[in-house]
Amino acid sequence: MGKSNLDLVKECDRFPYYADDPAFYTAHMRNYHAFRVNGCDANLGYMLNSVVKKLELPEGSWAIDSTNQTVTLMTDRDATPEQRSQLMAETLAVAVKRDTFEILRGWRNEKYPVYAPGGKFLLEVERSATPLFGFVSYGVHATCYVNDDNGLRLWIPRRSKTKQTYPGMLDNSVAGGMSTDEHPGECLVREAMEEASLPEDVVRKNSTAAGCVTYFYVRSAQAGGETDLLQPEVEYIYDLKLSADVVPKPCDSEVEQFYLMTVDEVQAALANGEFKPNCSVVLIDFFLRHGILTPENEPNFLDIISRIHRRLEFPTASHFEG
Amino acid sequence: MGKSNLDLVKECDRFPYYADDPAFYTAHMRNYHAFRVNGCDANLGYMLNSVVKKLELPEGSWAIDSTNQTVTLMTDRDATPEQRSQLMAETLAVAVKRDTFEILRGWRNEKYPVYAPGGKFLLEVERSATPLFGFVSYGVHATCYVNDDNGLRLWIPRRSKTKQTYPGMLDNSVAGGMSTDEHPGECLVREAMEEASLPEDVVRKNSTAAGCVTYFYVRSAQAGGETDLLQPEVEYIYDLKLSADVVPKPCDSEVEQFYLMTVDEVQAALANGEFKPNCSVVLIDFFLRHGILTPENEPNFLDIISRIHRRLEFPTASHFEG
Repeated sequence: MGKSNLDLVKECDRFPYYADDPAFYTAHMRNYHAFRVNGCDANLGYMLNSVVKKLELPEGSWAIDSTNQTVTLMTDRDATPEQRSQLMAETLAVAVKRDTFEILRGWRNEKYPVYAPGGKFLLEVERSATPLFGFVSYGVHATCYVNDDNGLRLWIPRRSKTKQTYPGMLDNSVAGGMSTDEHPGECLVREAMEEASLPEDVVRKNSTAAGCVTYFYVRSAQAGGETDLLQPEVEYIYDLKLSADVVPKPCDSEVEQFYLMTVDEVQAALANGEFKPNCSVVLIDFFLRHGILTPENEPNFLDIISRIHRRLEFPTASHFEG
Repeated sequence: MGKSNLDLVKECDRFPYYADDPAFYTAHMRNYHAFRVNGCDANLGYMLNSVVKKLELPEGSWAIDSTNQTVTLMTDRDATPEQRSQLMAETLAVAVKRDTFEILRGWRNEKYPVYAPGGKFLLEVERSATPLFGFVSYGVHATCYVNDDNGLRLWIPRRSKTKQTYPGMLDNSVAGGMSTDEHPGECLVREAMEEASLPEDVVRKNSTAAGCVTYFYVRSAQAGGETDLLQPEVEYIYDLKLSADVVPKPCDSEVEQFYLMTVDEVQAALANGEFKPNCSVVLIDFFLRHGILTPENEPNFLDIISRIHRRLEFPTASHFEG
């Protein structure tokens, strides 16, 4: 008996819901401090109490309120994003030096953005550190598929066995994180070349924006680093319909090989737990939009759809260019 | 300045979210009694206190707990759905006789189902009465579209001026409520004939299941009957791609006329408030899945997507046939 689609969704969307059990939710929240920034009236993430305890904060720069369980970055109310980012970076530099957190050994040298309500850019922080604060992270996933006389087939890569996260697991055709200042469409084009050797014109001509998936991930051992760190995520979704003669190929060292798999093969690999968790969610979303999963053949249709479009309880960016 | 897509979504998804303001949510919930059924451990809907006060409940058949604000149908723990439905019907018969509620003047003679956790059928109730109890209701919406050398165009009907709800407003190509025992695919076929004169073979051949939208509607004056009644809804979504020579036509008296509208025309009519509220939500979902609304051109992309796939706080059915 393999994993159901709801099992796969729950591996990814693991944070409890208030409405499911208000008393449990309220008790569970005692495990966290809300991360806040002086001058911004919103929780920006939840930090495990154990992280708050271990993180050494430069004196006077942070305020910890043990009663309300908040940690506040005490830059001036009218500080610039650079000033806030600088203070975050100083704090993390100390943690790296003292090797306080296993997760920081996977330092990426990439900056991830944090937004205030209304999508206002507040600060940026090293990518590998975002789960320490529980910040929302943003990425792009594209499903490359062929739909011809041979039926619907999907291009599925296997991750390199040397990747620091989820080594050797199956992945989505194109998937990557969005750095500060990057927009979803640009990120798609960049990652499609880096991970699948697909040229920009092919991507622009054949891609359709198809919404997003959102979920509240709680990191497992597979993810590397400390477990139970929080990682609420937004993945912008694209469908990339290719003719059978366009063959994605590994470009960098992150992908080992691409397979052109039938829907049955993908579903079997999903049930077998072969996919990186958030890739399962994106494939399930693809199947829901393309008439593969229907209310009549998926017993958890409604619960799945709402959980993979979870309303995150933190401000998010719009990435609006208008 | 017309309505934004988020404005349209908020007209439909009007019930507050706990995470937005826990104190406000908790206070707001004092306006309602949770509806429960003896032997079932779940809230099945929220009833306005004013409805609880006005509804005359047969003695001994109902338990009202003013402290916990619950109304419980006191059929035996192992009662049959028929027995529960019978008690509901008796209560409503008294209300109709005394003309207690304006909304019951729109009696439909259709039965809507109510489910326990796990999608177990609990009871059925007259359609027009469901907002008195705040039960989840289910429907099917299909967007008929043409996508050829003339670009993407959608078939949009105008509701009859004599309809009791939302008279004269624009609607979705095919839309209808699902009665007890009906499945989404059957409902699609039935409604496509009743509302658009589309034959079964055309519908089966050209339709793609494309997920669902869910939202928590609070009835406005436009909906008819008492305002502020609750109507959490699930709409199963289908896309119906037609060639330009297939022309939907009104069949029953509910639809006045069909228009083949461009995306720009539909968006202008949306901004102008010409659509029935939940039809706006379905069209926005269509635009999100078809690359018309993107993270780069829709400033409220994320909030819209999560709100139109709201996780309802009541048990829902799967409509699973497996």
